[in-house]
Amino acid sequence: MKKKVAIGIDIGGTNTVFGFVDEVGQIIHESSILTQADQDADQLFRRLFKEIDDDFEKNSTTYELIGIGIGAPNANYYKGTVESPPNLNWGVVNVLEIIRGYSSLPSAITNDANAAAIGEMIFGAAKGMKNFIVITLGTGLGSGIVVNGELVYGADGFAGEIGHTISDPNGRDCGCGRKGCLETYASASGIRRTVYELIGTTNMSSELRNISYNQLTAKDIADAANCGDKLALEAFDYTAKILGLKLADSVAHLSPEAIFLFGGLALAGDLIFVPAKRYMEAYMLNIFKNKVKLLPSALPGAHAAVLGASSLIWNELKN
Amino acid sequence: MKKKVAIGIDIGGTNTVFGFVDEVGQIIHESSILTQADQDADQLFRRLFKEIDDDFEKNSTTYELIGIGIGAPNANYYKGTVESPPNLNWGVVNVLEIIRGYSSLPSAITNDANAAAIGEMIFGAAKGMKNFIVITLGTGLGSGIVVNGELVYGADGFAGEIGHTISDPNGRDCGCGRKGCLETYASASGIRRTVYELIGTTNMSSELRNISYNQLTAKDIADAANCGDKLALEAFDYTAKILGLKLADSVAHLSPEAIFLFGGLALAGDLIFVPAKRYMEAYMLNIFKNKVKLLPSALPGAHAAVLGASSLIWNELKN
Repeated sequence: MKKKVAIGIDIGGTNTVFGFVDEVGQIIHESSILTQADQDADQLFRRLFKEIDDDFEKNSTTYELIGIGIGAPNANYYKGTVESPPNLNWGVVNVLEIIRGYSSLPSAITNDANAAAIGEMIFGAAKGMKNFIVITLGTGLGSGIVVNGELVYGADGFAGEIGHTISDPNGRDCGCGRKGCLETYASASGIRRTVYELIGTTNMSSELRNISYNQLTAKDIADAANCGDKLALEAFDYTAKILGLKLADSVAHLSPEAIFLFGGLALAGDLIFVPAKRYMEAYMLNIFKNKVKLLPSALPGAHAAVLGASSLIWNELKN
Repeated sequence: MKKKVAIGIDIGGTNTVFGFVDEVGQIIHESSILTQADQDADQLFRRLFKEIDDDFEKNSTTYELIGIGIGAPNANYYKGTVESPPNLNWGVVNVLEIIRGYSSLPSAITNDANAAAIGEMIFGAAKGMKNFIVITLGTGLGSGIVVNGELVYGADGFAGEIGHTISDPNGRDCGCGRKGCLETYASASGIRRTVYELIGTTNMSSELRNISYNQLTAKDIADAANCGDKLALEAFDYTAKILGLKLADSVAHLSPEAIFLFGGLALAGDLIFVPAKRYMEAYMLNIFKNKVKLLPSALPGAHAAVLGASSLIWNELKN
């Protein structure tokens, strides 16, 4: 009997990664093509399915395809659409409809943070958990929420935008057009902004004063903090404080068993986890204190996107 | 064949109300006894079940009891407990265990805001909705959250504490021991505090300056606002602004179809609904704008508690 695998596709602004993933999260094959974000969606899927067909042919005696899961920015699970993502020149596109032109396999799409949450539930550290949140700390802050064992899509398919809860209505400009969204503070970009604010507002000496804003990475800040750079440490503390405060609000809504941090800024490890947990505990209502775990994702970073996307299919089979 | 009814019990600090409720939310009989909050739980249930038995005897040829639903402060659905409610001298009590001493009927307990949410779904304006939030604006701010057609209890049974999300970490003292919780602003008590802050900080003339804090009610403030009292109108605007801002955060988490406002402050009608909706829209992420209804509860206020409690049983039968 052939072994079942699901296709996982992660559509990014630069690369589109795909892979064949089995039931236990083993990646049989993974590859990528350029997204060519300035062009329309059709050309991407034309090239993509050619690659997938070519790559699968070599495996088709051993494996059987069972479905196609896709993670993409601004994706709507209910409608199968991708709606005007900031980094793709697509407008509103019905991705599942396009895919049906290439394959009759069952297919499902959601945004990358939701895919990360399902991936964590199916293949990662949230196995067996019924109530948890995954926070992705990348350029922005994405989130996927699981309640009673199901991903929360809400009435319109767009639930789970914790990055756009408001930390300070008079705060930093957000890419969404509003002010003070959590992701303007708690994300890889957010902590860079904080470093530059601290450079401007304090006299703390710091090696980060030698790096331009456009060159500065979250890893530079973590490296400096690990060398005892006070300004960098202060930036982590400030980031963690706002993250902890807003995660306490998420806990008040949902009382999750755990919150997972994932993505670039989460790689800073204790620098972000230790103060974020401390502030979250301080800001939580008494009944929730010392109950909610703050954990790193157990998905391997380099393959998480494909695992998450493929887990959409494995999750639907489970239900 | 006898008509099926569920018992709904609402335990309050002063009165405990109970009633027999049929499948369509008709209340066959409703009555109440004093809670005697300074005494233990056992005495309440001893008296309560004597009353229930006496009252039901008269109806027992026509009706058949199918279960007992209870709304109570600090109630935990999973454990069947009530845990140290501020207005009852009970400590931690397993209410469902006590009830099993009096009745072998199926029983369930949750807090009053969760019961209001299930009541709205079974008997009220949320019929057929799968994703919505009920906010009770009374002495505090309670909330019940429904996702994918199920009440959100979270990992520990205590989810849905939107009243204790933090609006301002350096803000007003909250009864929970922290500062700046939403309920210190958006509740019947919260708007009273706002009136008194405005009396202290502004020179606006207001008839509310003639009422002591302890005498002042949310209705007084609504009456003054309806007569054009500027300070009262300002208090409603301030309350609505903070409520709208924090509800926008709830929408970012859950993308509900509707948010229902219920309880004392919601009775102010347009005074609270109109500005709260305006601010909520202003603070919401673009993708959610003009999608989320802000509605009054359709449960009749005087009977909502008993309807909500009984709906726990009708809801379990539905599943």
